[in-house]
Amino acid sequence: MNEVSLPELATQLVSLLARTGLSIATAESCTGGMAAQYITAVPGASAVFECGVVAYANRIKTQLLSVSPDTLARVGAVSRETAAEMARGVRVMAGSRIGVATTGIAGPSGGTAEKPVGTVYIALSSGQAEHCVKLSLGEACGGDREKIRQETVRQLFLLAIRTLKDE
Amino acid sequence: MNEVSLPELATQLVSLLARTGLSIATAESCTGGMAAQYITAVPGASAVFECGVVAYANRIKTQLLSVSPDTLARVGAVSRETAAEMARGVRVMAGSRIGVATTGIAGPSGGTAEKPVGTVYIALSSGQAEHCVKLSLGEACGGDREKIRQETVRQLFLLAIRTLKDE
Repeated sequence: MNEVSLPELATQLVSLLARTGLSIATAESCTGGMAAQYITAVPGASAVFECGVVAYANRIKTQLLSVSPDTLARVGAVSRETAAEMARGVRVMAGSRIGVATTGIAGPSGGTAEKPVGTVYIALSSGQAEHCVKLSLGEACGGDREKIRQETVRQLFLLAIRTLKDE
Repeated sequence: MNEVSLPELATQLVSLLARTGLSIATAESCTGGMAAQYITAVPGASAVFECGVVAYANRIKTQLLSVSPDTLARVGAVSRETAAEMARGVRVMAGSRIGVATTGIAGPSGGTAEKPVGTVYIALSSGQAEHCVKLSLGEACGGDREKIRQETVRQLFLLAIRTLKDE
């Protein structure tokens, strides 16, 4: 699971964005700012990154990221739909080309039979397309909160790099 | 400089907030989400943390954090005034008891004679009081971007812990 380090992936992502003149914004729930932190650790990141939101509370998801209260009531914060709306919301709010989002259950508490610890949704909105991926990281990460958060950011960066290369 | 680790300080801060029933929100420029990331790494952080903003661009500082465009034009983003307005802005926006903020020059570029690399302002707004501290971290951190960011978050957590204990 650890072939390329998070700092290396962040550097690849920032280089790819800079080369193509694109920008990215982040909306994070379960990763709590980790994606933004790795992106901004790269010198010169300010050329491609303007804004990140850590939206832990549902109120912040609706207020800042325009997630629909109806979506939250219907399918919950940890869902494909909420992840997609967070990615789109932060992209529009920040005026960036790409918006990415994370929402999930990092544990150790908060898991249910239907959504166990390690259930995470990541999403990317580019205006041209929307991608959403469900991750089940509980077993692979041994239920470890920090490992679940790191693997989520890794998968998010891989998704963004893949999408940028394809477009 | 490294007596207590950042994860330990974050744990202390979250415990102190939980014990006193208070909440915190973060507004980060130069630290790019690192403060939020360490806070949310603590299990149960959602009881005391609802919202963080990574405001790299000035437009985001005014739009989301209600920093005055006049302040930015007059004294710049890296200033005591901007740090204080960011801390107050995120506290009001998030409806939290405490707001904390960072703004500075982490380098390697962006330094000037007046504001060299390592010039950082941290601020705390609690409704009862406003604290603002200027840090000069260039020499102590050897101009290293990551060390400057980490030391900024450490000083921010120490400021918050001190303030909570005093109040």
